[in-house]
Order: sequence, then C-alpha cells, then structure tokens
Amino acid sequence: MSYLGIGVSPGNVGVYDNGNNLKVIDRRVRVTELVLRCVICVLAILGAALIATDKQVKVIFSIQKIAKFTDMKALVFLVIANGLAAAYSLVQVLRCILSMIRGSVLFNKPLAWAIFSGDQLMAYLTVTAVAAAAQSAVFAKLGQTELQWMKICNMYGKFCNQVGEGIASSLIVSLSMMVLSAISAFTLFRLYGNTKGKSNAI
Amino acid sequence: MSYLGIGVSPGNVGVYDNGNNLKVIDRRVRVTELVLRCVICVLAILGAALIATDKQVKVIFSIQKIAKFTDMKALVFLVIANGLAAAYSLVQVLRCILSMIRGSVLFNKPLAWAIFSGDQLMAYLTVTAVAAAAQSAVFAKLGQTELQWMKICNMYGKFCNQVGEGIASSLIVSLSMMVLSAISAFTLFRLYGNTKGKSNAI
Repeated sequence: MSYLGIGVSPGNVGVYDNGNNLKVIDRRVRVTELVLRCVICVLAILGAALIATDKQVKVIFSIQKIAKFTDMKALVFLVIANGLAAAYSLVQVLRCILSMIRGSVLFNKPLAWAIFSGDQLMAYLTVTAVAAAAQSAVFAKLGQTELQWMKICNMYGKFCNQVGEGIASSLIVSLSMMVLSAISAFTLFRLYGNTKGKSNAI
Repeated sequence: MSYLGIGVSPGNVGVYDNGNNLKVIDRRVRVTELVLRCVICVLAILGAALIATDKQVKVIFSIQKIAKFTDMKALVFLVIANGLAAAYSLVQVLRCILSMIRGSVLFNKPLAWAIFSGDQLMAYLTVTAVAAAAQSAVFAKLGQTELQWMKICNMYGKFCNQVGEGIASSLIVSLSMMVLSAISAFTLFRLYGNTKGKSNAI
C-alpha cells in the first residue's frame, strides 16, 4: 500500500531526522484523520436526516397538530451545520485519499492553514449548533415552569426521541471535529518548529 | 525590559536558527497571549457579575414575581463557565508574567500539553455555555409560538437587557479563548517540527 510508504518514498528521503518516531506518529495521525473524517461524513448525514425527516401528527380535540423540526430554529441550525460538516468532510476525505495515493506529506503552509481554519470553523460551528439544539431539547423535555414554558415531549414522544438520536449523532460529529481540529493544528504548526531548540527543552 | 530580550539571553543563544522572523513571531504571540488572557479574566468576571446580580421584581395583579438568573439553567451554566474561565485565566496570566520575568521560552512538552488541553477545554466550554444561553435568550426575547412558549422580555425588559450584556461579554470571552487555543496549539506543536522538512515545502 503506497500510504504505508510515506516518508520513505524517494521524494521524502531525509525529511525526517528524528528517527522512526515521527514516521509512526505521522502514519497514526493520518489514519486517525481519515477515519474521523469518514465518521463525521456518515454521522453528520445521519444526524441531519434523522432530524429533517422527523414528524409527528397528533389530533387533540379534533384539531390536527403536526410537530416538525422547523418549529424550532435550533434544529434547523443543527441540520444546516450537519449538512455543512458532511459536505466539508467529503471534500477532506477526497483530499486525504489523494495525498495517500500520491504518498506526499503536507508541507504546504497555505494549504495547512486552509485546512486548520476550516477545521476550527467546523468544530466551533458544530459545537455551537449542538449546544443550542441540546438547550432547546432540554426545554422541550423538562419545560421551564418559572417561565410557564410547558414540556412538549410527553405529547410528542416519538418526535422527541428521534430528535434526541439526531442530537446524539451530531454530538459525536462535534467531538470528532474537536479532535480533527487538534490534528490539523499539529499538521500546521509543526511546520514552524525549531528542532535545535528541542534539545534545550527542560 | 527582560521580556523583550527573550531569545537573545545567554541561555537561549542558538535556539533560533531561522533568523529574526521567529523571534518577532514569538514576541508577538506572547504579548497577544498575555493581553488576551487579561481581557478574558476581566470580561469573564464582568459577564458573570452582570448575570448573577441581575434581578427584576414585577407586581402583576398584586402578586409579586421576581425574575432572577437561576430561573434559567443556561444562565447558571454561563455564570459557572465564566467563573472557571476567569480563575483559569488568572493562573495563566501569572504563568505568563513569570515566564516573561525569567525570560524563558516554553520548550517543556508536558507543560505545553497541559496549557493546550486547558485552553481547548475552556474554549469549547465557554462556546457551549454562550450558545446555550443565547438560545435561551432567543426564546425569552422572541418566544416560540408553535410551542406556546411566550416571550418574557416585554415583561422583564431591564432583566433581559442586563442578561444580554452578560452574554455579549461572555461571547468576547469565548472568541478570545478560541484565539488563545490556537496560540497554545502553535506553542505546543512547533515543538514537534522538522526544520529540514520545511526546505522541501511546496
């Protein structure tokens, strides 16, 4: 597999001077990155689909009431954030696969900055969306008696459960994005390293 | 000022081999870090104080109603998050000042990992708290007619305004924490750099 050969392909000979350690770290980081980006892509689509397709019809005193995700702006925001995360991750997965096929190591600062910025943005976006949706879900589940906001989940149980699954899926997406943003920070900022300085480390 | 002398003090001669560029970047990064940590410390205390001291009494049909921040769990969470951010930043400000007085450059990996982890945790914690509080504030301000959650800010205008100021202050805290977490990622991950690799950069 050409991927396992990164760092020892002819173009990269001499890139690593810190023994096998960095080669092993680099391989693990790249595999972790690819796996996480695939997980995000799948779970973001799943989360968005679970919430966007959620609907429950209830007839109360001959009045038909329909609960749908657009009733809560936080859920719309979460669906959009998941959609963006899925599309972004798909592009990144393709980039990862391409760099694995070419066996190249990322030493391109502008590209590393772009990936770092994108990952940071996505991480904070998904965290914000999950937090807002979770807060709305708490109100829907428990109500807020002090403000006379009644709980609605005892009326729309099936709807609430599916939203909960969507939020859980999105939570994993945002946690994965957090790890990924740390990985892309590692990929970027080690380009600014001082190997001589490390020998003075205390 | 001993701080401005970092990188040229006897203990650090030979640390930088990439010319003056890294020295300048290092100085700017450290000054930015100190300023941001001070800003966070002050604004987190301000945000927590604004929300925690907020109270409005209203008499409706001879019934006295008191709006206070504990009525909304998201605001309690925001006060706690701000308190933690303020305490954490205070410790970090002391560390920054100490390292400036000693004129040392951070080459200690475990410490850099601890600072990076702390900053990441604080950034995501404050973002989550602000998002949840902002979502609650939107419900309070606009209501959610589909769910029959009525807006309460036309009743408790002064209370809502002060909460808004607290959330704005906390938003600046969380944005500053985001920048800081990128800075601490830079400080940590450049310790893993390959200067030789950089010459091959495309």
